[in-house]
Amino acid sequence: MLIVPERDIADLMTREAAFDAVEKVFAAMASGDAYNFPVVREAIGHEGALYGFKGGFDRADLTLGLKAGGYWPNNLEKRGLINHQSTVFLFDPDTGKPSAMVGGNLLTALRTAAASSVSIKHLARADAKVIGMIGAGHQATFQLRAALEQRTFEKVIGWNYHPEMLPNIEKVAAEAGLPFEAVDLPGMAGADVIISITSAFAPSLMADHVSPGTHLACMGTDTRGKQEVEAGLLARATVFTDEVAQSISIGEAQHAISDGLIKESDIAQLGAVINGTHPGRTSEDQITLFDGTGVGLQDLAVAAAVVDLAVDRGIAIEVDF
Amino acid sequence: MLIVPERDIADLMTREAAFDAVEKVFAAMASGDAYNFPVVREAIGHEGALYGFKGGFDRADLTLGLKAGGYWPNNLEKRGLINHQSTVFLFDPDTGKPSAMVGGNLLTALRTAAASSVSIKHLARADAKVIGMIGAGHQATFQLRAALEQRTFEKVIGWNYHPEMLPNIEKVAAEAGLPFEAVDLPGMAGADVIISITSAFAPSLMADHVSPGTHLACMGTDTRGKQEVEAGLLARATVFTDEVAQSISIGEAQHAISDGLIKESDIAQLGAVINGTHPGRTSEDQITLFDGTGVGLQDLAVAAAVVDLAVDRGIAIEVDF
Repeated sequence: MLIVPERDIADLMTREAAFDAVEKVFAAMASGDAYNFPVVREAIGHEGALYGFKGGFDRADLTLGLKAGGYWPNNLEKRGLINHQSTVFLFDPDTGKPSAMVGGNLLTALRTAAASSVSIKHLARADAKVIGMIGAGHQATFQLRAALEQRTFEKVIGWNYHPEMLPNIEKVAAEAGLPFEAVDLPGMAGADVIISITSAFAPSLMADHVSPGTHLACMGTDTRGKQEVEAGLLARATVFTDEVAQSISIGEAQHAISDGLIKESDIAQLGAVINGTHPGRTSEDQITLFDGTGVGLQDLAVAAAVVDLAVDRGIAIEVDF
Repeated sequence: MLIVPERDIADLMTREAAFDAVEKVFAAMASGDAYNFPVVREAIGHEGALYGFKGGFDRADLTLGLKAGGYWPNNLEKRGLINHQSTVFLFDPDTGKPSAMVGGNLLTALRTAAASSVSIKHLARADAKVIGMIGAGHQATFQLRAALEQRTFEKVIGWNYHPEMLPNIEKVAAEAGLPFEAVDLPGMAGADVIISITSAFAPSLMADHVSPGTHLACMGTDTRGKQEVEAGLLARATVFTDEVAQSISIGEAQHAISDGLIKESDIAQLGAVINGTHPGRTSEDQITLFDGTGVGLQDLAVAAAVVDLAVDRGIAIEVDF
């Protein structure tokens, strides 16, 4: 059984490997080869923590296991640890024995960034030039870095509820040699691609802030009650997601569904576009929207990839378990 | 983070330590200090395997984590591995970081044996002399060994659907210096304590096979549809369980509940007897019945105990994770 500690992930894992793993597992989900188990998520009544398990099985790749962990809101202030803590455990699907244990903190950031990046590859216009960021926290920097690799972007625009955080994403733009402009929300009409990555419980981006032909990736809504964009925007858009069941219950689409603006059958799996069984974007004027809710299979896929990299580099810790 | 592999469990863990851990966590469950999370159990469509997660949190003992694994029906024949494969992962409830990984196969057998043993301590008549075993497989030997420590038994009687397996439990009786007698099911009327540990889907033991004053521990039913004893027996008995929600849905009580013979409120937690908030047995003639369904907290409790023992003995494997 192999162990890849959190401290080794940054040197091992690349955005490319995360992209490939997430694209492949989205495709496997859409073809029926991979599925996620019911999610367990518990407020444990200690340290204000949320803890749980996201498991799944990919028959095509023979990846079985779970991500365990959650959110410890006092970690940073009390202990200098990051608040999101997770660990991925992989199992041999032939025997049920554990095969690997992998630090899941950086991987979670990378797989979330890979998801919006995969959606941009398959749904954004080929000539997209301006990318707009809604949200400028730590995770926003991961989303932007991955996104910039998918098109020849010429400019980054950004909005954040707390404008003093915008330098986080301005710095990523500068690293890529791109100009950055802070805008108000109506200013997002100038973007060809928009990524929202906030933890808001009320919509920021309204339907009329978005120009025809835009691709949006809504990455922040993963809980009942959260919301980043006006529900009416989903009625204007062609909506894609990682997993339909999550999209309608805990994802951005929950509001448009409960308001009766769209139906479950209006939402397509991004994996179907990857597989070629859904046409994806069919016109230059179409608004496409990816509702990225985050699934356990993404975590398992990137963890399996990093284990392979650690083995190749000879740095996986082997324990005779 | 500490690792205790399966191969070390047999030398480290004792029946006494398992008994103490299970008794304590049953008490914590009844006092509201400990609770189990929803169980995930999936037929993964590969090797006929059932795989899933049983998690929980004990606030009193600060034990957080899960048992992951399941049943791989081809393991023994194809690979010489046991079919039940499980691993326990413990987490630091203050931070969400993993604290231990423990082989769960032998621990599962020991914690299941400890459960019926705890029920005998708290519910069987003090003068119980004859113990009856229904079921004579591998797990039956664990149940019997643990049970024999709870009373001054003078005789073991046994029944199994395949009588050729009875020597398994006859051997355990002989180790304890006790006579063994194979009986038919009506012969169980001669027992003061009965443990059923089968994987049957139809009742073996009927209500009129049981004498007044008997304590029964029904340990085999952990799935919808399984059944070891006639539902009417639960109406004659005072019914206890590890967890009421499991007892009525996947435990032995599911049938008496669905037949309308008993109500959910008729079932008490064994932990309440341990805590002294339920009187337990109140007469010599009363039939008591423990419906042992098996909960994740039992697994976490015995795993935490074996980690302590491994640390004391200096054999826990430490990995800087």
